[in-house]
Amino acid sequence: MNFVIGIVEFFAILTFAYSGLIEAKRKEMDFVGSCTLALVTAFGGGTLRDILLDRRPLYWIDHYEYPIIIFVLAAAVLVIFRFNREILDHKILTYIDALGLGLFSASGVAIALETGIPIFPASLIGVITATTGGVIRDILCNEIPIVFRRETQLYVTCSFVGTWTFISLDYLGFKHIVGLLACTLAAASLRLAAVKFNIRLPL
Amino acid sequence: MNFVIGIVEFFAILTFAYSGLIEAKRKEMDFVGSCTLALVTAFGGGTLRDILLDRRPLYWIDHYEYPIIIFVLAAAVLVIFRFNREILDHKILTYIDALGLGLFSASGVAIALETGIPIFPASLIGVITATTGGVIRDILCNEIPIVFRRETQLYVTCSFVGTWTFISLDYLGFKHIVGLLACTLAAASLRLAAVKFNIRLPL
Amino acid sequence: MNFVIGIVEFFAILTFAYSGLIEAKRKEMDFVGSCTLALVTAFGGGTLRDILLDRRPLYWIDHYEYPIIIFVLAAAVLVIFRFNREILDHKILTYIDALGLGLFSASGVAIALETGIPIFPASLIGVITATTGGVIRDILCNEIPIVFRRETQLYVTCSFVGTWTFISLDYLGFKHIVGLLACTLAAASLRLAAVKFNIRLPL
Repeated sequence: MNFVIGIVEFFAILTFAYSGLIEAKRKEMDFVGSCTLALVTAFGGGTLRDILLDRRPLYWIDHYEYPIIIFVLAAAVLVIFRFNREILDHKILTYIDALGLGLFSASGVAIALETGIPIFPASLIGVITATTGGVIRDILCNEIPIVFRRETQLYVTCSFVGTWTFISLDYLGFKHIVGLLACTLAAASLRLAAVKFNIRLPL
Repeated sequence: MNFVIGIVEFFAILTFAYSGLIEAKRKEMDFVGSCTLALVTAFGGGTLRDILLDRRPLYWIDHYEYPIIIFVLAAAVLVIFRFNREILDHKILTYIDALGLGLFSASGVAIALETGIPIFPASLIGVITATTGGVIRDILCNEIPIVFRRETQLYVTCSFVGTWTFISLDYLGFKHIVGLLACTLAAASLRLAAVKFNIRLPL
Repeated sequence: MNFVIGIVEFFAILTFAYSGLIEAKRKEMDFVGSCTLALVTAFGGGTLRDILLDRRPLYWIDHYEYPIIIFVLAAAVLVIFRFNREILDHKILTYIDALGLGLFSASGVAIALETGIPIFPASLIGVITATTGGVIRDILCNEIPIVFRRETQLYVTCSFVGTWTFISLDYLGFKHIVGLLACTLAAASLRLAAVKFNIRLPL
């Protein structure tokens, strides 16, 4: 089962990195800017989570094969962008990004609860894990973070719902693996529904 | 006495959160953006202080009732904003904000000194505690932080004066409670005087 | 030998601080904004390095004479700017900045390796130490960080080459002092060559 999570997590990191590369392309950044945006989007949330909870070593220091893969990915994508081709269908990207959002929410809230903090801040830590990378990406691109804008479909909210799914199941005595799956599913499917039906916050 | 400080601190957090909500409204953010700006403005400074000094658990993880209150406040304020009414007089806001500035300066410098660091960096930590929240708020809104601008009346300077008031009284052997009160008073009254008489830095 | 490094490091901090002051002047910030930009540019990279590696006390808390010097420098520079005079030739600034880039890369990677982390993340930490200050400076000025832009000559790349020079020499069994010197030289000379011959990344 850990193997399955490892694979999904791998895709989540790649998708988040890819969204950083697309933003870097839009802002006409060079290879250095592209790599930085990719790394920050993929690892920003987990790094802030670990700093807030005082956990070390950081994820990308322990699993340093991931930043290496992102470097290679960035080089490949930049070469392909040169020939003006989109290398991934936007629809597939939305699916993987939603999966990434769900999975990072799940791992964030699970790790936070393990450190023994109360459930409300634990849910916030889960949301921070899933969304901070994108926020820093937008700040580095000199834009108001997209997830704060009124025209954006539910995103942070999906992560929030996911973390409370995990917390509820944990409270009811279910095993962690059930909560992780349910959290990922809840957040990802809510996100996909929000995109499909253009659901936004009323306020 | 701690009860009094607790009440003032409560108002300080609320005011800082409210200033985040106003900025979020100006930038047409939704409920998620509004809550984030409110939380970041209220807890950003204290969180950075605790990270720099390596203190855990963080304030808002320990006192998780505060983020919950801010969520409720944000919902209430957004509903009221819909009807285009200002829910607090700007003059009162300036007073509470000045009080918040003073109190956060006081708690920041006191906590920093307790960890045994020298007085000059301790004064910087006090200023960081009081002002970082507003700086991150402005960055998230894609603006140059207002406290760095030439047309802004004394703000960071008031916090700096407050921290040195605390350090001086501490050096002279006064009790912490005296220093905390004097720091809060010095910073808040200097800030209010700066607003009233439009005092700005000559440089 | 440590005395020599101390002197170079002193100049590196001053140059980075000075680049913050110039940006603050361009954005018409006041004394508070100028000091903050100077401090953040000079100490931002080292502070993030220490937070990521969980090292305390922070550099500028331990050596608090440096922030004091930057305050004095900021006041002096702002007074001189009033009379519209450039106080340092831009050519000399480029030299010192390149030296600072090299030295911060060297100290960053050396400290990271000492904590026992693998070489690839250690090289990233070296680059982060040398470049984060400038990135935060640009974010506070509400601009896309200059080092990410396509028109910028090699900068982050020079730091990266420098850190791998250190890692290679360390692997070959050379003493740390040799690696530190070689890293600084490699990064600084590559940076100066890039500026002179307008070398940019092909991607």
